[in-house]
Amino acid sequence: MQNILDIDTVALNKEEDAVVIIDQTRLPGEIVLKELNKAEDMFNAIYLLEVRGAPAIGVFAALSMYVLSKEVNIEEPEDFRRWFERTCEYLNSSRPTAVNLSWALKQMSDLVFEKEGLKRSEILPEIRSLALKIRDDDIKVCRAIGEYGLTLLHKGDGVLTHCNAGKLATVRYGTATAPIYLAEEKGYHLRVFCDETRPLLQGARLTAFELTSAGIDTTLICDDMSGLVMKNGWINAVFVGCDRVAANGDTANKIGTSVVAAVAKRYDIPFYVCAPTSTIDMNTPSGSDIVIEERNPDEVTKMWYKERMAPEGVKVFNPAFDVTDHDLIKGFVTEYGIARAPFEKSFAEIFRIKKEKGR
Amino acid sequence: MQNILDIDTVALNKEEDAVVIIDQTRLPGEIVLKELNKAEDMFNAIYLLEVRGAPAIGVFAALSMYVLSKEVNIEEPEDFRRWFERTCEYLNSSRPTAVNLSWALKQMSDLVFEKEGLKRSEILPEIRSLALKIRDDDIKVCRAIGEYGLTLLHKGDGVLTHCNAGKLATVRYGTATAPIYLAEEKGYHLRVFCDETRPLLQGARLTAFELTSAGIDTTLICDDMSGLVMKNGWINAVFVGCDRVAANGDTANKIGTSVVAAVAKRYDIPFYVCAPTSTIDMNTPSGSDIVIEERNPDEVTKMWYKERMAPEGVKVFNPAFDVTDHDLIKGFVTEYGIARAPFEKSFAEIFRIKKEKGR
Repeated sequence: MQNILDIDTVALNKEEDAVVIIDQTRLPGEIVLKELNKAEDMFNAIYLLEVRGAPAIGVFAALSMYVLSKEVNIEEPEDFRRWFERTCEYLNSSRPTAVNLSWALKQMSDLVFEKEGLKRSEILPEIRSLALKIRDDDIKVCRAIGEYGLTLLHKGDGVLTHCNAGKLATVRYGTATAPIYLAEEKGYHLRVFCDETRPLLQGARLTAFELTSAGIDTTLICDDMSGLVMKNGWINAVFVGCDRVAANGDTANKIGTSVVAAVAKRYDIPFYVCAPTSTIDMNTPSGSDIVIEERNPDEVTKMWYKERMAPEGVKVFNPAFDVTDHDLIKGFVTEYGIARAPFEKSFAEIFRIKKEKGR
Repeated sequence: MQNILDIDTVALNKEEDAVVIIDQTRLPGEIVLKELNKAEDMFNAIYLLEVRGAPAIGVFAALSMYVLSKEVNIEEPEDFRRWFERTCEYLNSSRPTAVNLSWALKQMSDLVFEKEGLKRSEILPEIRSLALKIRDDDIKVCRAIGEYGLTLLHKGDGVLTHCNAGKLATVRYGTATAPIYLAEEKGYHLRVFCDETRPLLQGARLTAFELTSAGIDTTLICDDMSGLVMKNGWINAVFVGCDRVAANGDTANKIGTSVVAAVAKRYDIPFYVCAPTSTIDMNTPSGSDIVIEERNPDEVTKMWYKERMAPEGVKVFNPAFDVTDHDLIKGFVTEYGIARAPFEKSFAEIFRIKKEKGR
């Protein structure tokens, strides 16, 4: 099998006239690269989850705006600005709730807005630079999370992860998987357990795939098996990603994360959240301020199945996320270091370092 | 929809020349009753899981031996005994690890063995009586568990259950579901949450089905959603069944039970095990003496799916059971009362009552 670490999840092709993605709808069956150079195809790639994972989508949108700007036949300043704005809005509408998508597109459109009076060809080099910076920053952030996370691991450790906070959700290393990949480079020979992560099976389809493809000793389990593997003493640390972290450390992440955290606490296993500082939201005081999205019941009862697996008419509760209480979390691995309780204080310190480094 | 509580899971037909089962391979799609009167069809019903659940299988085997004995054309004492022995062994080989199956068949063959020198027609009334007693005892035990369990519930309570310790696993009330059905009879209007119970989905296919069919307010969730529903305050008590209880209260049950128990502990929700005294094994000192069966990885990666949902070559750990530590368990609901910690002492008291009542 091709080592998936040799391919960026989202990239420019050599000629820089298309964005190349690993088509995630084809996983775990096969690695298919897809070149995209039309706005409509880029919209569909996000909408159809061919590209997914908040950081990867943000980078994809930035690179897409560069490719489209390079190829579009609109030179005049005002016409170009209007086209650019419209195209950003169009791409943004593919997944309205994806924060990184709108964040990346806003950065791109702010740049063009500031360059009032300049023609397309005059702004293009700066559009290119910003798109590449957004990509490179993602790689750097994940790499730094990997390096800090690595300090928490030892040779031969067992690690459990939930959902996919993997390289397939970012450009290169992932967040929760970054320490695992760096440990593998250093010959730690970890044993990794992936929860399958019902109902969408990101663990089975994506995490198990990318880790196996990278040659890592990977074992897939159902979500209800975490108790046994922890009780058996097979797990030394849990690493997960996150969607949003509140100021007190309460953490919204894929449904089931709080279950893993409660079980880890029971067996005294450290539970770490890998969190780019962009996901730490100091304006959200606690987890009770985070609204949980509910999704279509069909995801639970029939989506992947040959036939419906639950009785007609049964009620289904299908929340996409849950909130893990901060007292279940041993630490947050950020690109500026590891934050430990009390988190209000350690987050402040992390943001101080971030500011100091001027980002 | 037909109320499944009006049909016994395993029964004799009116003429007593066939055993009638609810074919569980047709659930949750439709309620299909199947009449069986040939040993081979009875063997297959167990083997193919048309009838399942330890208590139900035991009753099924006893009723089957009665029906076969009634219809067989072998009158002479020695010939009949040999035929009876052989037929018991044949049925027993359909699921060699099912304790209730061999237990029920041993009771039946012991009876015939004791009646040396009697012809088939002379023993038949006693064979009938014993088979019906095994059935009636199952109903009585479940009913008693339901009545004791009911004392732990209040009107409008939210209850969570895992796997199927339901009426479909017994003749009539189930074990973990018995308090729920009795509460419904009394107008408690419980709100019940069923874990789907990966990988075999007994919660989605069976528990959600039987509760919905009985008109109970039932919500299906994935196994990784228990944390959120408990944190939301929707659950007042957890009821599960069990496969084997050790003398110290450590409990082997369907994989995932220990996860639910750890999460319930986290949110201070009482966790009850519904346990017929036949499952309490005073010869097993603790959970560490219980061997956990591992099953086929295909159950996790492809069994129910349109296509394989995990990468080829990934390792899979697929344990059928886990052990819940006794300190996570608030009490055991048995047919002779509720046992609370310390369990060595309360189990001794339960068995004293059982002996006193002469069973």
